[in-house]
Order: sequence, then structure tokens, then C-alpha cells
Amino acid sequence: MRGTVLYGSKDIRFEEVPEPKIEKPTDAIIRLAVSCVCGSDLWSYRGIQSVKEPTPMGHEYCGYVEEVGSAVTSVKPGQFVVGSFAMSDNTCPNCRIGYQSSCQQREWVTRAQAPHMRVALADGTLVPTSDLPSSGMLPSLLAASDVLGTGWFAADAANVKEGSTVVVVGDGAVGLLGVLSAKQMGAERIIAMSRHETRQKLAREFGATDIVHERGAEGVARIKELTKGTGADSVLECVGTQEAMQQAIQSTRPGGSVSYVGVPHGVELDGQQMFFSHVHLHGGPAPVRRYLPTLIDLIAKDKIQPGKVFDLDLPIEKVAEGYAAMDERRAIKALLRP
Amino acid sequence: MRGTVLYGSKDIRFEEVPEPKIEKPTDAIIRLAVSCVCGSDLWSYRGIQSVKEPTPMGHEYCGYVEEVGSAVTSVKPGQFVVGSFAMSDNTCPNCRIGYQSSCQQREWVTRAQAPHMRVALADGTLVPTSDLPSSGMLPSLLAASDVLGTGWFAADAANVKEGSTVVVVGDGAVGLLGVLSAKQMGAERIIAMSRHETRQKLAREFGATDIVHERGAEGVARIKELTKGTGADSVLECVGTQEAMQQAIQSTRPGGSVSYVGVPHGVELDGQQMFFSHVHLHGGPAPVRRYLPTLIDLIAKDKIQPGKVFDLDLPIEKVAEGYAAMDERRAIKALLRP
Repeated sequence: MRGTVLYGSKDIRFEEVPEPKIEKPTDAIIRLAVSCVCGSDLWSYRGIQSVKEPTPMGHEYCGYVEEVGSAVTSVKPGQFVVGSFAMSDNTCPNCRIGYQSSCQQREWVTRAQAPHMRVALADGTLVPTSDLPSSGMLPSLLAASDVLGTGWFAADAANVKEGSTVVVVGDGAVGLLGVLSAKQMGAERIIAMSRHETRQKLAREFGATDIVHERGAEGVARIKELTKGTGADSVLECVGTQEAMQQAIQSTRPGGSVSYVGVPHGVELDGQQMFFSHVHLHGGPAPVRRYLPTLIDLIAKDKIQPGKVFDLDLPIEKVAEGYAAMDERRAIKALLRP
Repeated sequence: MRGTVLYGSKDIRFEEVPEPKIEKPTDAIIRLAVSCVCGSDLWSYRGIQSVKEPTPMGHEYCGYVEEVGSAVTSVKPGQFVVGSFAMSDNTCPNCRIGYQSSCQQREWVTRAQAPHMRVALADGTLVPTSDLPSSGMLPSLLAASDVLGTGWFAADAANVKEGSTVVVVGDGAVGLLGVLSAKQMGAERIIAMSRHETRQKLAREFGATDIVHERGAEGVARIKELTKGTGADSVLECVGTQEAMQQAIQSTRPGGSVSYVGVPHGVELDGQQMFFSHVHLHGGPAPVRRYLPTLIDLIAKDKIQPGKVFDLDLPIEKVAEGYAAMDERRAIKALLRP
């Protein structure tokens, strides 16, 4: 079969790769219904994270089980499943406490931008839907696999509650779904920081009540102004840069919470700044598996439409165009159809 | 009157200073029953924090109200009061949400190592006891003013709950009272990190179930061993150095919590380490005012004896000996009697 491989900065290829097969009795093979390009793929695509050798890409997926290893008991061929980018046994102490993305047996998904893939720890990782989904539901179920699960964790880790005032730093797909998640958790006011018209529109559709264009110190001043001088209860840092993190911490009220869900690049925090800011900090790779049953249910009942973040729909052969469009911010997120 | 003034590294003097007086209608003057030396006083005493000019010292206090300004309504002369090192109005949005140490009108207490002191924002800052306390209760009430309130915040900020496994990094008075606080909050297992026999003994008396001598990577390995490889639910960082903070983060399970309550000196956190550790971080200057009514009540009912951290009792004229004994770790904490 053919799959997506990154050779170096801006050099993405769709080329012949080995067909995946069961390697351990706990594996499953799935046929992907849809896949996509992640904002985090851009770190290496842009050369910010170096690419030492040709690297198979992709970690967001949903699709049909084709084959399972002899030890797999909870999913079977023909079922439609959604999994997380972090494969987990769902039984170790870290999983049991809800941090499946720190599973003691964790493996990271790669090779999902392809027609078929192997999923390790299938029983722990995959969640089947109760019925086979309609084609219209596929983009939203795909979103659950990472970008929605990550936005949901951002809101949860920032302690968003009924009535909260929330700021979302970052208008990528994760930030936009952070807005959707905060809305679902009952936030009263959701301030999206964005300078991009298409993204602002989607933020409003997902529940943003205010849009702030300013950045850095000006952005912080604007948030203080909108919150009577105190800062927000919850701030979701959905970028992963030092500038975004600083903006997040400074926009939060004493006793409020900052979450961070994008792999930090160049982020360093000063102890005294953290100390006197009085904020709560929590983040990391989103434990998507914890939220999947809830998210799948909300999607199945059409209560949320996270699939709207896909504003570019491509046959998987055109994956390179998906990367380019996201890199140049022409697209929020590119859906790939195998 | 005479009061305590720091002139430079290891140069502490008890000398003639101006008698405090009402400066604003919201002030009160109190006559201190007891005062003490704080671990945080040692940063400047040791020259780690530079001393640019002669600096009046002391921020822990309890005593008798002597005089109040015309706007003060909640305390009156003759009452016994305890206050926090952070003076606060207790009415601003930050105070109302329980972060009085980030009060929008916050002032830091100084000059408390003296027979009399001025307390600003007296209505918000001071909490009167229902009766005049016995002399035996004075050390514990004094502890509530900072070191107990700070240990209590450390346990609270690290989310200590019924049944938690807790690690306390730091065997100073704050760490020891962090042990006491964790015990009060229902922790099942409390691991104190200490190499000092007297302190270990007090830690056990306050509720520690295990003592770990090892530090750094060995200390972390020992905690992992004691927690079946996962790490502790809650870790209280009661030192304020990079080494202590690293030890705390690495000793915590994914999804667990680290609190930090000592002003950080030279602490820098790497974004990716924080991200992949999956811990919650919270700390800052303890909002002691939030906890004072509870703590005073526990002390009045003799349910806790935090005053046991004072293992040196000096007339205030001998304050320099108090600093020296704490600096050389001959004493845990020095009580000063005006």
C-alpha cells in the first residue's frame, strides 16, 4: 500500500510502504475511514523539530476493524472504532486514574496517514461505536481521536466549570475545539484570541462570546479590561510557544488555572513568576481515551459537530497539499480520504 | 522601642526603632505576645538575597490590639488577634475567591520582630480569638500566622485528600507543618524527606508514616519504590530550590499534584518536562487569611499543636542568636518573647 512519509522540511511524500500486520496478540489492524493532518505534524514539517530519517506520519484515525490478534477480546472485525494517538492498556495504575496518555505501556501512534494501520494494545486503545456511523459523522469521529479530545482536556485541565470566564490562546483546530469544550462544560464567557476571520467565525459558532485580536502585553491588557481587572478563571494555552504561555499565565486571575496541551517548544517558566502569579498549571499529552466514550456519545447524538474544523477535504494522495495548506494557514485542518 | 534590623549578611541587630503609630484610619497597633524567625528570613540573612539598606525584620505575629484607626470596626483594643504576613482587605475579588495573599491592596508585613507593630487593613487582616488564650497556646497561634498557614496551603494546593499518598520535600518548620496538615486532611501515607533526627522525630509525631533519607535521583527512586512505581498523589515542595522542585515533580504520579510554597530561588522549569510529567502545579504566597478561622479553632480545641516546631525560646533581645541557630540548623524555629 501507499502511506505518508516525511523526508525533511517541506518534503512530504505519499509512497509505497509495508502493509501493516499483526505483530503481537494484542494488536488490531484497521482500515481507516478518514485520516488527517495535525497541527503538531507541522513542527517537523517546518523543520523546527529535526527529521533525521524518512518518518511515517499520522496519528489521528477512525475506521473499521479488519483483523485482531489472538488476545484481543473487546473489539472484533467489522466494528467501527475510534482510538487515541497514545495507545494504552487502560488497566495500569496511570490508566485507571484517567491518564492513559501516560500508560506504563504507552506507545505513540504513527503511520495513520495511510489506508490501513496497526493499533497496539487494541483492547485498551480502541472504543467501538454502537452502530456503523453515517459518512457525515466521520469527520467528527475522527476529530474525537485527537484534536477534540485535546481541546476537551484543555478545558478540563483548566478547571472550566458552569459559569466560568475562559480565555483560549490559539485559534488552531485544538483552540477552536477548546472553545467548543468550554461551552459544553458550561462556561459563561469564552474569549477567543484570534486575528483570522474564518477562525473567528468558527470560534463564535462553537460558543465564543468575545474575540480579542491583540497579542502579548496588549492582549493581556485587553483580557484584564474584559474581566474587571482580575483576569480569567481558566486559560487554555493551545499553541506551545513561550509567548503563548506567558500570555496565558498573565491573563489568569490569582487562583485561576492555565492548561497547556500542545508539546511546548522553547517554553521555560521562571519560578518566581509562577509563584507570584498564583495560578494552577496542568497539561500534557491529552488522555483522550478517558474522554472517548463521552465524546463519541455527544457526536452520535449530534450535540456537537467538531468535524467543522476540517475546511479542506482531500484524497489521501494529495496529502502534501494538506500539509502546505495548513502550514500557510490557508486551511484550519485537512481531512484525508484513503 | 527596640526592634530587629538586618544590616547585611549575618549582621542582625536589636536596636532603637520608631514606635509604630496609626497612619491610616484602617490601621491597628498591636502589642505582640510572641514573635519568631522565619525560614524565609534566612535568604537575606545568608546574603543569597542582597540587603541594600538596614531592613526591619519579622512578619509572623499574634498579640493584643492596643489601638485602632477610626475606620476599623471588626477588632477592638484588648482583643487577642492573629493575622497573616500578607495584609489584605478581604473584600476585593482576589480575596473573595480565597487568594488574600494576592489582595489588590496587599501589603507585606515587616517589623514584627519587635514589641509593637502596625497592621494595615486591620479589618481584613486580623482574626480575633473568642477568648484570651493561655500562655501555652501562644506558640501555636503564632504558628498559624505563617508557618502553619503555609504548610496547610501546601497540602491544600497539592490536593491532599482522604486516603492520599503524600510526599513532603523539606524538613523545615513549613515542611513539618505540611505533614501535620496532610494528616488533618486525611492522608493515608505521609512520606517525609529528612536526614535530621530531631526533625524526623517531629515529622513522625505530626503524622509521617515513612522517612526517606535519600535526595535527588536516589530520593526519587526511593519514592517510586514506596509507591509501586507510580509516584505519589501529592508532593509538597517546601524548600524553594531547583533541586527540591525537580525532586518534587519527579516523585509525583501522572495526574498528581505538586505544590510550592517557599519563594523560589533559582527555579526554572522546562516546558517539555512539565508537559510529559503530567503533574498539576500550584503554589505561591500562602493565603493564610483564608485558613485562619479554621486553624485558630483547631488550636483552641487542642486538636493540633503546631507550636511544637519552636524548639528554641528566646527573649527578643537575643534575636541574633535565633537567626544563627536556625542558619546553622541547630534549631528548627526560634520563638522570640518581647
